[in-house]
Amino acid sequence: MSEAAKTLDGWYCLHDFRTVDWTTWKMLSSEEREEAINEFQGLVDKWNTTQEEKKGSHALYTIVGQKADFMMMILRPTMEELNEIETEFNKSKLAEFTIPAHSYVSVVELSNYLPSDEDPYQNPQIQSRLYPILPQANYVCFYPMDKRRQGNDNWYMLPMEERRSLMRSHGMIGRQYAGKVKQIITGSVGFDDFEWGVTLFADDVLQFKKLVYEMRFDEVSARYGEFGSFFVGNLLQEERIRPFLTV
Amino acid sequence: MSEAAKTLDGWYCLHDFRTVDWTTWKMLSSEEREEAINEFQGLVDKWNTTQEEKKGSHALYTIVGQKADFMMMILRPTMEELNEIETEFNKSKLAEFTIPAHSYVSVVELSNYLPSDEDPYQNPQIQSRLYPILPQANYVCFYPMDKRRQGNDNWYMLPMEERRSLMRSHGMIGRQYAGKVKQIITGSVGFDDFEWGVTLFADDVLQFKKLVYEMRFDEVSARYGEFGSFFVGNLLQEERIRPFLTV
Amino acid sequence: MSEAAKTLDGWYCLHDFRTVDWTTWKMLSSEEREEAINEFQGLVDKWNTTQEEKKGSHALYTIVGQKADFMMMILRPTMEELNEIETEFNKSKLAEFTIPAHSYVSVVELSNYLPSDEDPYQNPQIQSRLYPILPQANYVCFYPMDKRRQGNDNWYMLPMEERRSLMRSHGMIGRQYAGKVKQIITGSVGFDDFEWGVTLFADDVLQFKKLVYEMRFDEVSARYGEFGSFFVGNLLQEERIRPFLTV
Amino acid sequence: MSEAAKTLDGWYCLHDFRTVDWTTWKMLSSEEREEAINEFQGLVDKWNTTQEEKKGSHALYTIVGQKADFMMMILRPTMEELNEIETEFNKSKLAEFTIPAHSYVSVVELSNYLPSDEDPYQNPQIQSRLYPILPQANYVCFYPMDKRRQGNDNWYMLPMEERRSLMRSHGMIGRQYAGKVKQIITGSVGFDDFEWGVTLFADDVLQFKKLVYEMRFDEVSARYGEFGSFFVGNLLQEERIRPFLTV
Amino acid sequence: MSEAAKTLDGWYCLHDFRTVDWTTWKMLSSEEREEAINEFQGLVDKWNTTQEEKKGSHALYTIVGQKADFMMMILRPTMEELNEIETEFNKSKLAEFTIPAHSYVSVVELSNYLPSDEDPYQNPQIQSRLYPILPQANYVCFYPMDKRRQGNDNWYMLPMEERRSLMRSHGMIGRQYAGKVKQIITGSVGFDDFEWGVTLFADDVLQFKKLVYEMRFDEVSARYGEFGSFFVGNLLQEERIRPFLTV
Repeated sequence: MSEAAKTLDGWYCLHDFRTVDWTTWKMLSSEEREEAINEFQGLVDKWNTTQEEKKGSHALYTIVGQKADFMMMILRPTMEELNEIETEFNKSKLAEFTIPAHSYVSVVELSNYLPSDEDPYQNPQIQSRLYPILPQANYVCFYPMDKRRQGNDNWYMLPMEERRSLMRSHGMIGRQYAGKVKQIITGSVGFDDFEWGVTLFADDVLQFKKLVYEMRFDEVSARYGEFGSFFVGNLLQEERIRPFLTV
Repeated sequence: MSEAAKTLDGWYCLHDFRTVDWTTWKMLSSEEREEAINEFQGLVDKWNTTQEEKKGSHALYTIVGQKADFMMMILRPTMEELNEIETEFNKSKLAEFTIPAHSYVSVVELSNYLPSDEDPYQNPQIQSRLYPILPQANYVCFYPMDKRRQGNDNWYMLPMEERRSLMRSHGMIGRQYAGKVKQIITGSVGFDDFEWGVTLFADDVLQFKKLVYEMRFDEVSARYGEFGSFFVGNLLQEERIRPFLTV
Repeated sequence: MSEAAKTLDGWYCLHDFRTVDWTTWKMLSSEEREEAINEFQGLVDKWNTTQEEKKGSHALYTIVGQKADFMMMILRPTMEELNEIETEFNKSKLAEFTIPAHSYVSVVELSNYLPSDEDPYQNPQIQSRLYPILPQANYVCFYPMDKRRQGNDNWYMLPMEERRSLMRSHGMIGRQYAGKVKQIITGSVGFDDFEWGVTLFADDVLQFKKLVYEMRFDEVSARYGEFGSFFVGNLLQEERIRPFLTV
Repeated sequence: MSEAAKTLDGWYCLHDFRTVDWTTWKMLSSEEREEAINEFQGLVDKWNTTQEEKKGSHALYTIVGQKADFMMMILRPTMEELNEIETEFNKSKLAEFTIPAHSYVSVVELSNYLPSDEDPYQNPQIQSRLYPILPQANYVCFYPMDKRRQGNDNWYMLPMEERRSLMRSHGMIGRQYAGKVKQIITGSVGFDDFEWGVTLFADDVLQFKKLVYEMRFDEVSARYGEFGSFFVGNLLQEERIRPFLTV
Repeated sequence: MSEAAKTLDGWYCLHDFRTVDWTTWKMLSSEEREEAINEFQGLVDKWNTTQEEKKGSHALYTIVGQKADFMMMILRPTMEELNEIETEFNKSKLAEFTIPAHSYVSVVELSNYLPSDEDPYQNPQIQSRLYPILPQANYVCFYPMDKRRQGNDNWYMLPMEERRSLMRSHGMIGRQYAGKVKQIITGSVGFDDFEWGVTLFADDVLQFKKLVYEMRFDEVSARYGEFGSFFVGNLLQEERIRPFLTV
């Protein structure tokens, strides 16, 4: 048996994609819509407070194309909190006019392929990556992925040595995009259908394509990567929520 | 032909996942909702009685993400009882406000890879595993799985010897999680689309990820495991049913 | 080119799975529901007459889990009759409260792998298998299947000799379940998405699992079997139709 | 690069499968239903005129099983005409009570694997196959297919010689069914999801199964065929339209 | 690791496919429909202005078959503009009577397999291809595609040399269709589920089939191409919008 990579695990993460049912939304009076937006704004205010207290973080993006209209990405210390936030949104007025489009359950994960003597959970740099405040980047890209287990291309049958070396060169590519793309890896083995979720943030949306395309030529992706659906979106700043929902 | 592993089979099992239609649920008067909750509570009371009489068991969990809102896991001595429980729920008031999200039909199964002289069905330890009272653990994880039959990775073409040895080392990993994760394997060959259902219970949700990830490096999973959708949830204690459904 | 196995073909077969829309069904007055049940009972009466005249057969089962609520399996001498029965049901009152869940179109088939001098269609034993009266067994199991054509595991490239020998040993397993499981194979090449439908009947539901699991270790299934969805159900005796539909 | 087979292309083809929404159809008054049927009959009359003028052809079949209730197969000289016919139907009263179930866009195609000196489009026999008047056969079978490109089974990497020789022996099987099964091949590369559509017509429905099954043992299908969904149906003669729609 | 091909990237692109809900559309008064058409015409007018100012381009096509009724292809300098156009359409009256059928998010891409000394973004010929005004061709064909990463057929493991040489001979085929088929390649790595979108324009619809079929025998497609759904449509000239929507 190959040795499993050790992981460090931080905040739990829910990606919650929604489609707006504009037809029924328009049937409301503008007062009712206003009320629904205010109630949603109230939820966001609570999330802001949590974020200020460093007890979680969140990000809102509108999604391009028909896969969804907007995405709420929520980080919290426990699964219960994710479930409560999701249920609270589901019970809100606005939720009556949204249709669930996709969701993903995972936990912020750092691969501990590099040896370490100290307790990584006490390392401030690692803490800031396990419990990250999500950036207000212009664009987001989300996709889930697996490591392939197929015929001769079976990641999980490779010796730890080889996986570590492959991941190191893979990481090199990512590092070239430092300052351009911020990447948050969340692990979802046992939580959702793929093994990882990848969330990328950038101010230049083209960097997503460049990064993912360049990585695809790397052996880790070329031979061992299996990818799910890709979602791309534009930052939904709080002041843009109202215009976005105004009809 | 390879020799088939002998199995011991216990209670039949239905995993029943439901999504709440919050929009129509909110349209009810609070009296009507109260009535629906009471009726559902009445069903749970009956299930509790059955469990106390050791004629079955059940567990309720809310599910994180959009795959479902809650899950009822039901164990009973016969398929007819599962069908009756399901139909009784379907006819209830609450069911009018839920949408079937997923289900799985199986039977509690112990692999009898280890030789045995005595009648295992008389062994009290084995009885308690075939007819288990489900734990009130904080978290649940459910996923179905197959053993792969693909090119050179064909589990069913391996000699019994090799399968037994592979399963033994596979079981070792599980044993390291004793006390942290309780695992119930249910067989579904001939009953549902995958060959097995795996239901894990833990008080620390991260243990699901650790266990499933570690196992993935074991040859049994790495080369021979095919996995379906994963569901993760939080315990829905009886006293939490009403708040969960209050809008 | 490999020689195709000769088949004997009997009655055409429709498996028709339906989900009950309990919510709208409950909206009817009990008189209206009574009327709908009576109309459905009238259809079943007609089918009974046909069966008594040995011009067809049928079976009704409730299905466990969310895949469907009940299944009508209909055998008739012509495709036109299947189409008429289906359309007649679709136009009935009860059908307004059911949602099509799955269907399968096929024809009762006997593999003629064994050489034969006489006209098999005149053989009474073969006739009773081509035009079978369906048993009133407690349980049913239905699944469709293909023979694999993939890389080195290509059934259709094997010489007839080898296929015959593999099928013979495969049939041995089935024969061990004689008296426990009755199996009806229906061919669907050119009629539906898989090549065969398998319908199993048993009074002990566990025998489905034992049979299908044991067969999976046989080379015919292990290397060459591709399986679709599995449905399992409980006999819906005529006297149980009314209680089943009573809300 | 392998040389591409030359094709001859005739009329464009739309297979349009529909499910009847019997519940809402029954809500109409019988006058309204009569009106809708008359309007549909008017469309069919127009199609008949086109067919008499040899400017196209069409066929109507009811489909067995839940995949669809009926199928309109339309042949026309241009894509625009197919689009107009489809849109005209979509705007009709009857269409309000049908649900799109499946469609397929293609063009009648003759494989020109055999060398030819003359202009094939001037050959009357070829003309009658490129611009065929569809037969009023009792039964129809439709399925789409691809030639496989998988590992060692890659049709498109075979030299023209080998493909031609394989297709010749494949054609031999078809020829044995001359008089029993009429086959129309339509090409859909660039038009729809598979590479070809196969439409079979026969007066004995069992011939579909025999033909497709026998062909499956031929190397062209066994190693290189990938098949989509199969639809089977009964001729919907014009005089049967009204009874079919009468509720 | 293989070297990634350099790409040039132009306008962002949204393919937005819609199905018309004719049943509810007909429920409107003709005044309301007129108003909805006028509002949609107003959007198209804005898009026309943008196109005249060379700040984007668009094309409208009706789609043949049930996959969609019409397609809007929109090119813009930023993702934000695509999102705004999509949202503006979604909030329009006409959108209430359309159902999202499919969408694709990508960016106009030129493969820079050929070495280049100058800044390609300053080259007028390349500019006209990166920021193209879409042709008013009679027909459109759209499909997404991936380069295969499977066993021995792994595009991303090939050395740059080999990929370049394969692409060159692939491009030769395309060049034979110059004047007949105009091709726009859009890259979608990181933006949508496939790696590229291919949009073809032609005045003779048969050229799509000829081109795609011929290419399929080329090693790049035969061994390395994975294709998604194909959509084919007829030009929806502005003067045809009103008749198309008139019921």
